[in-house]
Amino acid sequence: MRYGILGTGDVACTIADKLIELGHEVMIGSRTVDNPRAVEWARKSGEQAFHGTFADAASFGERVFNCVKGVYSIKALTSVGKDNLAGKILIDQSNPYLYENRHISLDPRWSGNTSLGEANQALLPDTKIVKTLNYLCSHLMTNPGQLSEAVTGFYCGNDKEAKAEVAKLLADFGWTDTMDLGDISMSRYTEMLGAFWPAGLNATGTIKWGFKLVR
Amino acid sequence: MRYGILGTGDVACTIADKLIELGHEVMIGSRTVDNPRAVEWARKSGEQAFHGTFADAASFGERVFNCVKGVYSIKALTSVGKDNLAGKILIDQSNPYLYENRHISLDPRWSGNTSLGEANQALLPDTKIVKTLNYLCSHLMTNPGQLSEAVTGFYCGNDKEAKAEVAKLLADFGWTDTMDLGDISMSRYTEMLGAFWPAGLNATGTIKWGFKLVR
Repeated sequence: MRYGILGTGDVACTIADKLIELGHEVMIGSRTVDNPRAVEWARKSGEQAFHGTFADAASFGERVFNCVKGVYSIKALTSVGKDNLAGKILIDQSNPYLYENRHISLDPRWSGNTSLGEANQALLPDTKIVKTLNYLCSHLMTNPGQLSEAVTGFYCGNDKEAKAEVAKLLADFGWTDTMDLGDISMSRYTEMLGAFWPAGLNATGTIKWGFKLVR
Repeated sequence: MRYGILGTGDVACTIADKLIELGHEVMIGSRTVDNPRAVEWARKSGEQAFHGTFADAASFGERVFNCVKGVYSIKALTSVGKDNLAGKILIDQSNPYLYENRHISLDPRWSGNTSLGEANQALLPDTKIVKTLNYLCSHLMTNPGQLSEAVTGFYCGNDKEAKAEVAKLLADFGWTDTMDLGDISMSRYTEMLGAFWPAGLNATGTIKWGFKLVR
């Protein structure tokens, strides 16, 4: 399948590498057409790897990952344009985080009685947004089995078929314990969950941890 | 030991019952001296159970639990008075939650770059506040071993000795996996973690779940 990836950071490259490994074609997109990190990633990743603008990547992908830093998400999705994403599954990993010293807080524009997942969905009503993988460190996203036991893969969104497709992809990524939280408004809680990062880091001294929902 | 408990809700009564079971003397405190639930709890709970005002309970306790509904926490602690809590450990379970339909959001007064734990500590600089047990359902607080495996008992606060004492009490409550997150500013993250409640309920259909930090 063809995947577009919005963003060129650690999360974007981690997802892109895994999709290539799984045999997919992948285009990484950034603000400019010649982003050095995107160029380098495509160069070293073989014949199925491409780079372009945000709009190029969205147009290329049958499915699209939103790996843009949260505060730029609305701007990036706006620049892509609704048509390039209409009818497609957008796997949304963005978080409304503000970083200050050792702390994370939620951007008031996308917290409280809303979330960035909901704002992205409102911007793109014809796109099937599934929020997932946003609440954990990038090293776990495509290798969740590396800890002492399975952590839980939460996802949410308004479209049931899209969620089922994303759950299959999570299984391809190695997830054995996944959980459908409900509609896109449940993004509020995974966006808050992901903010636990400074606490877990402070307590364990590492980023080698994740949450399991024990029931 | 003598414990004071601020509040008469489910959390307060759950903690109070457990402390009585462990052989402690307990006074439940509320806004008024004759709160029906406090009176009834003391009547049925034996000779070591008492009730009174917030100030009575704080004065009675060598240690004090703050089980007041979060939005009233500052008001309740102010009514107690600093002197009744000076030098004591205050085990803080309050959360800055606003409830609307099926959702929880964080009260903007005590979220973002602060938390209710930090606000309580700023109000009571001579009190050793340890925030814990605020992020899970009351049925798990004093019976954390009832799920398929141990969930994690997070706590934070500025005073190391106070945290060690609270960790011992958590062990008495049945906690086998506890974790010191750091100073009181880490309240931000357990207060956000506890907001996961609507998502977990929606996904599992029950309140019989909790988080384990897998490492």
